[in-house]
Amino acid sequence: MQNPFTHIKTIFFDADDTLWQNETHYRQTEKQLFALLGLNEKDGTRELLQTEMQNLPLYGYGAKGFTLSMLETAQRVLGPQKAAAVTGPVLELGKKLISAPMELLPHVRETLQELAPFYTLAVATKGDLLDQQRKLKNSGLTSFFAHAEIMTDKTPQAYLALCQKLGARPQETLMVGNSLRSDILPPLEAGLQAVYIPCACGWIHEDVPHTALPPFTTLKTIQALPALLKGETNA
Amino acid sequence: MQNPFTHIKTIFFDADDTLWQNETHYRQTEKQLFALLGLNEKDGTRELLQTEMQNLPLYGYGAKGFTLSMLETAQRVLGPQKAAAVTGPVLELGKKLISAPMELLPHVRETLQELAPFYTLAVATKGDLLDQQRKLKNSGLTSFFAHAEIMTDKTPQAYLALCQKLGARPQETLMVGNSLRSDILPPLEAGLQAVYIPCACGWIHEDVPHTALPPFTTLKTIQALPALLKGETNA
Repeated sequence: MQNPFTHIKTIFFDADDTLWQNETHYRQTEKQLFALLGLNEKDGTRELLQTEMQNLPLYGYGAKGFTLSMLETAQRVLGPQKAAAVTGPVLELGKKLISAPMELLPHVRETLQELAPFYTLAVATKGDLLDQQRKLKNSGLTSFFAHAEIMTDKTPQAYLALCQKLGARPQETLMVGNSLRSDILPPLEAGLQAVYIPCACGWIHEDVPHTALPPFTTLKTIQALPALLKGETNA
Repeated sequence: MQNPFTHIKTIFFDADDTLWQNETHYRQTEKQLFALLGLNEKDGTRELLQTEMQNLPLYGYGAKGFTLSMLETAQRVLGPQKAAAVTGPVLELGKKLISAPMELLPHVRETLQELAPFYTLAVATKGDLLDQQRKLKNSGLTSFFAHAEIMTDKTPQAYLALCQKLGARPQETLMVGNSLRSDILPPLEAGLQAVYIPCACGWIHEDVPHTALPPFTTLKTIQALPALLKGETNA
């Protein structure tokens, strides 16, 4: 079978948990929230997720909407009077989350360095505009990327629009990411290639039933990407 | 003197308070906040502005950061215990602000319609990505615009980058907006033209000393723009 990756000219990378740590910061923040609420992880996760899902159309993705959802969860779980003691601390948790240190994932920098001379590289990420621009700047990776697109939703149409913007043919474009729902299924539906690099820390909302998935390639680490693209391995 | 606008090929429009109502929604929200805090407008404005200015580097522009700053102000002004009663209501104020109805400013639609066949029109706005995309969609104006850029900061460099992205020469590009600080001074510094259309409702942070301003053109209403561009008036 012909390697579908040897024709790739353009590579889009998801950012959070593909290029750098993100979910771990959210998980740490959640743990501190649950402690403030006196909830165990299971109950805390359920309560917070309920608020987040309700607010997603209004707040979108990102640390500010997450902070507002933490505050709303505290109101509902504790009641206004008992929540009084945690509002200030939760606001602080949110600020700490927004200014969390940048930690690149292993092998990201050297892999981008290896790919950059041969491919057009771009970032395709969801989230808050200011947050993502700050993270990209702090990552020290900007010079590798021809473009960074901060998307409100990762639909097939949005991926096609990004291809068009960069003058890239979908079938010659690869999306690399850690979310089946956002980084793998929509690009495949739009006729792009996609490579899944799972992260140890998936967000529950991102889970999709595996039975519904078309075939796609999974890599354990971004380090294996250059060899895959050169046809040296089928992973 | 030669009309500097007859060479214009591309027009960037600020969005909030240039194309549609925005500050009025914030002012209404603030009034309701001050009532909850038991503060008069002067004291309330001072307290809120202090929080907003401190948080601007972290939160940027937009309704979610504004809501977080309202909550923080309530904590500081009332103390955690007294603030208990207002946290829920302030979260609701923020949601109401985010989902405020879209109201175009007078003459915007017909002016864009008149300009669209002859100029490349683009939106150049600050603010929250999701909020601005939602507003643009709700405005019904998208078909007039070749591009919408949601910027984290309106620096001269950002305007030059936008020109480059659209293949527009700065001296043939006009920025139209209601903020001297964001829409007029940086474009002029970058070699673009700029037209100021003041709104009845300026945000305090946007004020700049008028003595520091280079000459620029002011219009009372966007309706006067087509005639200005055709050289039929010097406004």
